[in-house]
Amino acid sequence: MATSAPGQPRNLAILGSTGSIGQQALEVVRLHPQQLRVYALGASRSLRLLTEQCREFSPALVAVSSEESARELQPLVPPCTRVMWGEEGLRAAASAPEVDAVLLAITGFAAVAPALYAAQAGKYLALASKEALVAAGHLLRRALAECGGRIVPVDSEHSALYQLLQGRSRSEVRALVLTASGGALRDLPLPQLHQATPEQALCHPTWHMGPKITIDSATLMNKALEVIEARWLFGFDLSQIRVVIHPQSIIHSLVELVDGSCLAHLGAPDMRIPIQYALLPERAPSAAAALDLSQMGALTFQEPDPERYPCLQLGYRAGQVGGSAPAVLNAANEQAVSLFLDHGLSFGRIYELVAGALDANPYSESDPDLETLTRADAWARQFIREAVH
Amino acid sequence: MATSAPGQPRNLAILGSTGSIGQQALEVVRLHPQQLRVYALGASRSLRLLTEQCREFSPALVAVSSEESARELQPLVPPCTRVMWGEEGLRAAASAPEVDAVLLAITGFAAVAPALYAAQAGKYLALASKEALVAAGHLLRRALAECGGRIVPVDSEHSALYQLLQGRSRSEVRALVLTASGGALRDLPLPQLHQATPEQALCHPTWHMGPKITIDSATLMNKALEVIEARWLFGFDLSQIRVVIHPQSIIHSLVELVDGSCLAHLGAPDMRIPIQYALLPERAPSAAAALDLSQMGALTFQEPDPERYPCLQLGYRAGQVGGSAPAVLNAANEQAVSLFLDHGLSFGRIYELVAGALDANPYSESDPDLETLTRADAWARQFIREAVH
Repeated sequence: MATSAPGQPRNLAILGSTGSIGQQALEVVRLHPQQLRVYALGASRSLRLLTEQCREFSPALVAVSSEESARELQPLVPPCTRVMWGEEGLRAAASAPEVDAVLLAITGFAAVAPALYAAQAGKYLALASKEALVAAGHLLRRALAECGGRIVPVDSEHSALYQLLQGRSRSEVRALVLTASGGALRDLPLPQLHQATPEQALCHPTWHMGPKITIDSATLMNKALEVIEARWLFGFDLSQIRVVIHPQSIIHSLVELVDGSCLAHLGAPDMRIPIQYALLPERAPSAAAALDLSQMGALTFQEPDPERYPCLQLGYRAGQVGGSAPAVLNAANEQAVSLFLDHGLSFGRIYELVAGALDANPYSESDPDLETLTRADAWARQFIREAVH
Repeated sequence: MATSAPGQPRNLAILGSTGSIGQQALEVVRLHPQQLRVYALGASRSLRLLTEQCREFSPALVAVSSEESARELQPLVPPCTRVMWGEEGLRAAASAPEVDAVLLAITGFAAVAPALYAAQAGKYLALASKEALVAAGHLLRRALAECGGRIVPVDSEHSALYQLLQGRSRSEVRALVLTASGGALRDLPLPQLHQATPEQALCHPTWHMGPKITIDSATLMNKALEVIEARWLFGFDLSQIRVVIHPQSIIHSLVELVDGSCLAHLGAPDMRIPIQYALLPERAPSAAAALDLSQMGALTFQEPDPERYPCLQLGYRAGQVGGSAPAVLNAANEQAVSLFLDHGLSFGRIYELVAGALDANPYSESDPDLETLTRADAWARQFIREAVH
């Protein structure tokens, strides 16, 4: 799906290469060396792992966050690898002419700028960082349209929707349905929910992910953000995007069609499948185990209880308000979850604080630029910190 | 999907109009009068209902089975409706130049000839009569290829596969998976299965269908035939076509992809959805209720137990042998089921007799013509009758 010549390996820039998605992307590259080549890597943490990755893949370019990290890394990597740092490094990696596809797997608001660099360079953008679309979907869409770039989602739910929508006309579709596991606290009695501990909320039943996203899974804030992401990815109205609790996480998403039938995408909870789907030009055998229908037990579904998952509604609310509201939603949530993980606030307060940030958001422009979004992001984090202390 | 000019209603020939599928097809026509028009009807039974249908839809042509029926019907239908009978009537209805699409919903081997007429006339063939593909798939495929016709399946499982495969390349697909409810005797203890009565076997858990197909659902012979049907429809090897028991009949079929993921088609058990999908040029709202995921309970899957469902293997066996074997399988089964419904043999004997017919089949040509298939069909029925008496 990237733009390299047929038969030529695709040059990748993998930004966030030391994170979980980045590491799994490199597994995919190892599995398909004829088709994928690492041109650039980028990471802000785990310099030791980044060093190993540079030694293994000999990228032409590696981007780190600080000058200090760059100095530390340069003597450890192959001589052909140029080490850059800061915004300049990210921009170079995301927009180098040699790069066919950018895999963006940077956590948080930091993903917005490199997503825009890639879009402005007309790149094929494999997007794992939902924050880029949530916070700056209007800017990213515009840049892609103006510069001829493309975006393919890497998270399992949106990859599922992307695959299900391929070859179908919009008029066939009544609704997109994102599935949610319901998180670690799905069955906790409601009266105990407000005081649930980080330890309880981190026991995710089906996916193994980082702590922040595991908490988002327990609050359903992950789906609140994904609803906004789906809107920008697929161009449907928020009212056409629904969420259903599906504890087994086998069905990754569904498309409801106008004639009453539904299409579903099923798979093992293995991120290498959607990563590979986004990176390779054609669907190919993966390292993931095939789904054994008869071994997988019962698949169940339930409507999300608004009392248990009040955060979900915040996604629709922020999406409807638009402007900087989704960026505020994302930033306030990141900050609140971080405080929750540090035992700085109760589980129930996450919703209250984020809702409060949306209420108080002073950035009301309908079409905010990146600078305004950056300010809104910082404001929201500050708002949460001040509300707690 | 038929070939009429844009904006013009599509002229339909509905063969088998008084059966369950035929009646539901006319419901679809009533719902979409701007897009669908009845040009021809055909039925061999229920002359009274056929008369009503002619009065409502004023077809240009109606085909009945006998001269006697034709004489009876002619004075009762609108003057613009020409009544024909026998092969001539079927041929005229299936191949009239005015007809854009032929819906073939005739039961049994009788469907083969009109399917070939439609294919030889290069028609768009909406096929509900699986027997036509099972018994004469090689002839039908050849006629479609030579005369530029197209075939779209109408039964729910194959319509699901057809929809899931659209826009995908063959190299993406590892296997097709047909779902089976498991029928009315799914949970009957094995020792009692051999002596199950027609009354027990007719209590189908999810779909309401005619008695013959309900028994086929209990033996899994319906899937044995559908495996062969899928092979001719989609051109995959028999080894790539699997069957899984799915008691809820919500997932109509699945496509397993090479990367380990699966696509599924879900829907209410309402034949109007696949009928409409096959007849209309585009997917449109249907009279069927939308699927309510959270109300539908658990979806479960299990491998078909070969001891409980020995008939399934006969489908693979007949498909591998090819030639007239699938026609013999189909005919022997029709005859055996008919005798079973008349309490003329036990449930367990259905398998034994049909397997015996496959063993004894004297028609071993690898590329039998319609005449040979017709003889093989008659031979198999006779074989079963003689084996019982």
